Amino acid sequence: IRVGYPEVIYCENKTIPQIREIIKFMLTKNNNILATRATKEMFDKVKDLDNKLKYNELGRTITLEVNEIKKTDSYIAIVSAGTSDLAVVEEAKETASILGNKVKVITDVGVAGIHRLYARLDIIREAKVVIVIAGMEGALASVVGGLVDKPIIAVPTSVGYGANFNGLSALLSMLNSCASGVSVVNIDNGFGAAYNASMINQL
Amino acid sequence: IRVGYPEVIYCENKTIPQIREIIKFMLTKNNNILATRATKEMFDKVKDLDNKLKYNELGRTITLEVNEIKKTDSYIAIVSAGTSDLAVVEEAKETASILGNKVKVITDVGVAGIHRLYARLDIIREAKVVIVIAGMEGALASVVGGLVDKPIIAVPTSVGYGANFNGLSALLSMLNSCASGVSVVNIDNGFGAAYNASMINQL
Amino acid sequence: IRVGYPEVIYCENKTIPQIREIIKFMLTKNNNILATRATKEMFDKVKDLDNKLKYNELGRTITLEVNEIKKTDSYIAIVSAGTSDLAVVEEAKETASILGNKVKVITDVGVAGIHRLYARLDIIREAKVVIVIAGMEGALASVVGGLVDKPIIAVPTSVGYGANFNGLSALLSMLNSCASGVSVVNIDNGFGAAYNASMINQL
Amino acid sequence: IRVGYPEVIYCENKTIPQIREIIKFMLTKNNNILATRATKEMFDKVKDLDNKLKYNELGRTITLEVNEIKKTDSYIAIVSAGTSDLAVVEEAKETASILGNKVKVITDVGVAGIHRLYARLDIIREAKVVIVIAGMEGALASVVGGLVDKPIIAVPTSVGYGANFNGLSALLSMLNSCASGVSVVNIDNGFGAAYNASMINQL
Amino acid sequence: IRVGYPEVIYCENKTIPQIREIIKFMLTKNNNILATRATKEMFDKVKDLDNKLKYNELGRTITLEVNEIKKTDSYIAIVSAGTSDLAVVEEAKETASILGNKVKVITDVGVAGIHRLYARLDIIREAKVVIVIAGMEGALASVVGGLVDKPIIAVPTSVGYGANFNGLSALLSMLNSCASGVSVVNIDNGFGAAYNASMINQL
Amino acid sequence: IRVGYPEVIYCENKTIPQIREIIKFMLTKNNNILATRATKEMFDKVKDLDNKLKYNELGRTITLEVNEIKKTDSYIAIVSAGTSDLAVVEEAKETASILGNKVKVITDVGVAGIHRLYARLDIIREAKVVIVIAGMEGALASVVGGLVDKPIIAVPTSVGYGANFNGLSALLSMLNSCASGVSVVNIDNGFGAAYNASMINQL
Amino acid sequence: IRVGYPEVIYCENKTIPQIREIIKFMLTKNNNILATRATKEMFDKVKDLDNKLKYNELGRTITLEVNEIKKTDSYIAIVSAGTSDLAVVEEAKETASILGNKVKVITDVGVAGIHRLYARLDIIREAKVVIVIAGMEGALASVVGGLVDKPIIAVPTSVGYGANFNGLSALLSMLNSCASGVSVVNIDNGFGAAYNASMINQL
Amino acid sequence: IRVGYPEVIYCENKTIPQIREIIKFMLTKNNNILATRATKEMFDKVKDLDNKLKYNELGRTITLEVNEIKKTDSYIAIVSAGTSDLAVVEEAKETASILGNKVKVITDVGVAGIHRLYARLDIIREAKVVIVIAGMEGALASVVGGLVDKPIIAVPTSVGYGANFNGLSALLSMLNSCASGVSVVNIDNGFGAAYNASMINQL
Ligand SMILES: Nc1ncnc2c1ncn2[C@@H]1O[C@H](COP(=O)(O)O)[C@@H](O)[C@H]1O
Ligand SMILES: Nc1ncnc2c1ncn2[C@@H]1O[C@H](COP(=O)(O)O)[C@@H](O)[C@H]1O
Ligand SMILES: Nc1ncnc2c1ncn2[C@@H]1O[C@H](COP(=O)(O)O)[C@@H](O)[C@H]1O
Ligand SMILES: Nc1ncnc2c1ncn2[C@@H]1O[C@H](COP(=O)(O)O)[C@@H](O)[C@H]1O
Ligand SMILES: [Mg+2]
Ligand SMILES: [Mg+2]
Ligand SMILES: [Mg+2]
Ligand SMILES: [Mg+2]
Ligand SMILES: [Mg+2]
Ligand SMILES: [Mg+2]
Ligand SMILES: [Mg+2]
Ligand SMILES: [Mg+2]
Repeated sequence: IRVGYPEVIYCENKTIPQIREIIKFMLTKNNNILATRATKEMFDKVKDLDNKLKYNELGRTITLEVNEIKKTDSYIAIVSAGTSDLAVVEEAKETASILGNKVKVITDVGVAGIHRLYARLDIIREAKVVIVIAGMEGALASVVGGLVDKPIIAVPTSVGYGANFNGLSALLSMLNSCASGVSVVNIDNGFGAAYNASMINQL
Repeated sequence: IRVGYPEVIYCENKTIPQIREIIKFMLTKNNNILATRATKEMFDKVKDLDNKLKYNELGRTITLEVNEIKKTDSYIAIVSAGTSDLAVVEEAKETASILGNKVKVITDVGVAGIHRLYARLDIIREAKVVIVIAGMEGALASVVGGLVDKPIIAVPTSVGYGANFNGLSALLSMLNSCASGVSVVNIDNGFGAAYNASMINQL
Repeated sequence: IRVGYPEVIYCENKTIPQIREIIKFMLTKNNNILATRATKEMFDKVKDLDNKLKYNELGRTITLEVNEIKKTDSYIAIVSAGTSDLAVVEEAKETASILGNKVKVITDVGVAGIHRLYARLDIIREAKVVIVIAGMEGALASVVGGLVDKPIIAVPTSVGYGANFNGLSALLSMLNSCASGVSVVNIDNGFGAAYNASMINQL
Repeated sequence: IRVGYPEVIYCENKTIPQIREIIKFMLTKNNNILATRATKEMFDKVKDLDNKLKYNELGRTITLEVNEIKKTDSYIAIVSAGTSDLAVVEEAKETASILGNKVKVITDVGVAGIHRLYARLDIIREAKVVIVIAGMEGALASVVGGLVDKPIIAVPTSVGYGANFNGLSALLSMLNSCASGVSVVNIDNGFGAAYNASMINQL
Repeated sequence: IRVGYPEVIYCENKTIPQIREIIKFMLTKNNNILATRATKEMFDKVKDLDNKLKYNELGRTITLEVNEIKKTDSYIAIVSAGTSDLAVVEEAKETASILGNKVKVITDVGVAGIHRLYARLDIIREAKVVIVIAGMEGALASVVGGLVDKPIIAVPTSVGYGANFNGLSALLSMLNSCASGVSVVNIDNGFGAAYNASMINQL
Repeated sequence: IRVGYPEVIYCENKTIPQIREIIKFMLTKNNNILATRATKEMFDKVKDLDNKLKYNELGRTITLEVNEIKKTDSYIAIVSAGTSDLAVVEEAKETASILGNKVKVITDVGVAGIHRLYARLDIIREAKVVIVIAGMEGALASVVGGLVDKPIIAVPTSVGYGANFNGLSALLSMLNSCASGVSVVNIDNGFGAAYNASMINQL
Repeated sequence: IRVGYPEVIYCENKTIPQIREIIKFMLTKNNNILATRATKEMFDKVKDLDNKLKYNELGRTITLEVNEIKKTDSYIAIVSAGTSDLAVVEEAKETASILGNKVKVITDVGVAGIHRLYARLDIIREAKVVIVIAGMEGALASVVGGLVDKPIIAVPTSVGYGANFNGLSALLSMLNSCASGVSVVNIDNGFGAAYNASMINQL
Repeated sequence: IRVGYPEVIYCENKTIPQIREIIKFMLTKNNNILATRATKEMFDKVKDLDNKLKYNELGRTITLEVNEIKKTDSYIAIVSAGTSDLAVVEEAKETASILGNKVKVITDVGVAGIHRLYARLDIIREAKVVIVIAGMEGALASVVGGLVDKPIIAVPTSVGYGANFNGLSALLSMLNSCASGVSVVNIDNGFGAAYNASMINQL
């Protein structure tokens, strides 16, 4: 990974010994660490390596902050639709934080109850960049895109069933957003959205 | 077609002589007539059959009202997103009208400029049933569904390009709507939505 | 949720503690409750909260009726093809009931044995609105649509294998129905169909 | 081609000179000829080769009967849903005829008006093998399959629009038919269905 | 099921008590029985009902022959490509047998070793109707179709991985077969193919 | 449109009279204008409205600059793979320019000749934000993403044939980019990418 | 382009002036030239540039041989199924030739008439590398792969209709070939197959 | 399998007794053996058959070298992107080795860190044929194809999530590679790539 500060490990498809080895090596370099898609079992089998290692169960991240991170003044707003999208929200939040960003999280503002979104609109509008996380029909990205004049990074989630086709409906929705200023990352890719938002927030 | 009043012809894939023959025969029965997906050329080649035949160019419909139609008191609201959806709007409007429904049309209220939707919300809420017509990401169906407590019939349109896949994005969006009370008809099927809405409006 | 009477919880992707918390909170408001996609284990872990909580195993619903529900005079007909569609039938029936509708259920009338459908046609025709639930090729929606002059809400189910692609065949069939008056909800969405039908039945 | 009697040419993607050449050569062998997917222009440019060459415009076939064909006693029933499926009906009929089969054609019996199918049921039941041709949701194959105890060869057609995806909806429907005894050929493949039916009819 | 002789149960998505109930009821009618997609566990929980119930583990069928079945003189050839297709072969064989057909099974003749197919060609050519079962690229159907002048019912199987997409590659292959006389049933549908072949074999 | 400066018209699916009407109205407001997806014929039929109207044939844009646009100091780099992607490049360039951005365009640096990309790397690295436009396999986005530490907005193009499926291959590639910092807009959406980049460039 | 000898132009999506410009420039370098996907009109508008420019109408290639090409001793066999695949055959042949390879072309050996393939098997087996070109179900690649012990490059073609989905059926077939030694290039990509085969032939 | 030396077993969908039987039989013929897609459990249940049987856990292969294999002088380079692709790398390596090829493996050179690829370029360029294994967006195949003048066999892997669709993104990428000289095998098909490469390496 090119960024200086945290080293990043993508744990999916890696064995626990592999992950242990990588973390051990990273610890020698005295860098902050972010591991994504880490199961609880993975964490339990590596946590003895350093007692500052932290696990976010919902977000499936392991983090280690050896160097204190100075946060930005401007912030990233992470906006999400339903409670089922929270895993992706947490992955994005942990990523943005360890990359040194101030983050504000606004959840449960799906378009079926749009008044809840309006109640939080000011906090979204004052962000420097906005991450919108939504499954099912992903309409939230367009609605936020229409109301907020900031770059929007949309994350479709695989939440839903049937004709949702594991996130395809939200993905296509977001790619076809009629609101300008919306770009899209892979389904469930909270990490990628936050990495992207961090770059923009720190320009 | 089962409804007593208008006879309906679906012109796609039919030759002009076939359509002429069908209309001629219908005229003998003294019924109202609705022909959908009719090209201008088709109309020009049949209009001599009866001088009451009317053509809606945008909606591609031919209609004939031999028996005056008494309209309902309650009405169907037809709500659409962009100017490119107007062909489907017109098909729905012509269908609903000749089936005897009062219709109110609210266009250009796509979610990218959601304030325009709010400005027309009262008129939508007072309808007995609502048709929502939208292409691209089809978010309008969910937003209207969240704001209005009436049955919503959503029509995805093939308007868009690229990852829109000829209406697939709007179709999947609408099928996965997080707002309750939304059901869906085929892409560009303004006729079907109006037929359905008419049944509900006349219950 | 906008409807006054029951509160609705969608249990998929929620943890048992989350569901317990939501139900506890709802109980303080003295409302009826409907939880869909609830596993037996979920029910076992929340049933101590109120001894009126009921579980429908096939339909995967938890319901609580604290306020007696006055049922409509008109009724919703729920029509289904095979025994494998019964889970969706039960979800629809529980939803329609707690929303205050009289419901009549007609099962096992798939088109391979169409005489069984004819035997029950009167009861379907007298409904105010009809829900048709079918998997595999979903032909039942078109056949009922052709025989019955009422609004039809079609629910494709994921029952089948191979080229059924988890409900895609029935979904596409129903969207392309040659019978007028058929609208469609998501694959396996018995809840959505019943919510929709309830709105129409109570117009 | 293995069958002794007619030689078959598939004209799609062939140039007129190529087709002329093939027919010329076939004429030397004194066999019957069937050319499918032939445009009017193709016919006009080859008809001078033999004045017995006949063109079926709707079915896009060219045929030549130099040897009188003795027809079977048993017959193939070709059953179709809408007027838009007639091109495929004609291709199947021409193919079956030149292969020496007695054919009975029953059109316009789509499931939206199922009484019309019942009116013709006897003639279908007495066939030795049945070809069912339908577009849109292709429900006719299942309905006929449920009512008739003969092998059914189903031909999905590309008739329809939107979520029909050029015949995919009818194709999937037919492959998932809940009625036993239905097998399927390619979209719009009237030739293949008739060839198949002919083999069965002449067993 | 319409055929007089065996009653057929499709066990997928049915509970063991449901299946027990159905078999019990069938036993009272003194008919032969065929149950498909039955797990070993299902069989173990119903075998006490009648000691003539037999289980085919590979084919996942339960059969009961109370009335001796007189077999046809002509036979159905079941031809398959690889050892992984054998489950479907067995389902087809059991179905064809209990429907009263003489059956000859030719396995392991996939096109990668085409000489093995040639070695068995005579036996295939003398069948009245041929079932070809193949996964992966499904080429066997076309090759057999080109060599044998009998109706071919092709069954794509879900055997394979990657771009096989659970049988889609074989399904599309078979639908597009360049050999005439090939019709297709659903992926893995050994039952449907045999039912169909039986109809033809007994014409 | 929310941005103060230029008004934007999307010409696809609009008639020439409609476009004339919109431009006429915009001219009264003395704003800059950007029309995308405009055919040459459209331009010819509106250019009399104001002699400052300019047409970019390759990019299919009409622009009008009534208010001089002050350009940013930082710039947007637009990087593209092949000559066939130039239409999208031009749409992006015109959009970014009229929105007030300095733009540098680097074309013909596809990964098949990666040395050409290296030769231009400095100019890309010094941009504030980078737009990468590529068809076929879209690998360029990942390669630039790996070499440049700036936010990347990737635009898949529909250039290619066969398994390209009108841009699907590049779209999926870009969504799955192994390089961090890449977000994606719709196929061929040069406008959207530039709008997005402009927001970031002007933060 | 990396290869020393011919320069290659891919004409699709290029304007005639662009192509003229490129050829003019290439002529100054005294290299052989290959242009693929060139229309007749393109050729007519560039042929004045050099009277050695040749056009292959079926293969849509323009070639120029300024330096005599010494051909390899070993040869590439190009094997194809039907007459409709000939355009791809010609593109492959022209490419292989100008790259300096001896080529032998074997056409019309589709698996529906497999004896024709056997008749030509020796010539295929003696090639150093084999290109197999087939549309529809693409079975030819597997059959040749099973009979010939040489590397096979398979080219699916878009020949077919319906469930062929523009070459998808042949593509998936070939990717899933049960015969070892088969690799695949894009649909209709005769150029790519020949380029690849040339590399192997000249190892 | 046609090659003389090792016999190959594809273990997926085979039972342990079946595999035991096959290996036992092969041992009698004194040939080398390669079994792919073998689970650890399979190996444990067959390893008593011969104490030279070896298991590669990551590559899921069982091998037996009874006849010493003389390796080629030229070598196959196996190049891969990420650590998650290693299973496919190992399958390819074991296959190529037992087929008698010298193999050099270059891993962890994905395009996000392209300098690592450059560091190993010499070793790749000196190979006779190159296998490129990559998941996600599969860009590595195009980059290597652009830098190396050898035949490239690309293997898409199913590594990734979301819009990766189990390897579809890498598959389409590789099929659409803008670099000449790239052909493709099935997703995760390390065996097929190595078999193919071996043929070329031993020409
Ligand atoms: N089975 C279901 N399928 C689709 N949507 C549902 C289902 N059950 C409940 N819902 C919707 O989910 C909402 C509750 O979601 P939640 O707040 O996440 O529990 C309800 O108001 C319904 O609109
Ligand atoms: N409409 C059709 N659809 C599919 N296959 C056809 C059709 N018409 C003819 N064929 C097949 O194409 C073969 C002739 O192909 P060809 O030699 O290219 O003219 C015939 O033997 C038939 O098997
Ligand atoms: N090429 C384009 N692709 C996608 N969206 C566009 C494009 N050009 C303009 N738009 C959007 O379309 C809106 C104008 O749409 P309309 O009011 O229908 O002309 C603009 O505000 C943009 O958000
Ligand atoms: N028919 C073809 N299909 C795919 N790629 C091709 C084809 N013809 C040429 N190419 C490739 O396109 C490159 C030239 O592209 P361009 O510079 O855009 O003309 C050549 O070097 C080939 O790699
Ligand atoms: Mg915005
Ligand atoms: Mg609502
Ligand atoms: Mg009806
Ligand atoms: Mg039947
Ligand atoms: Mg045959
Ligand atoms: Mg980067
Ligand atoms: Mg071979
Ligand atoms: Mg190369």
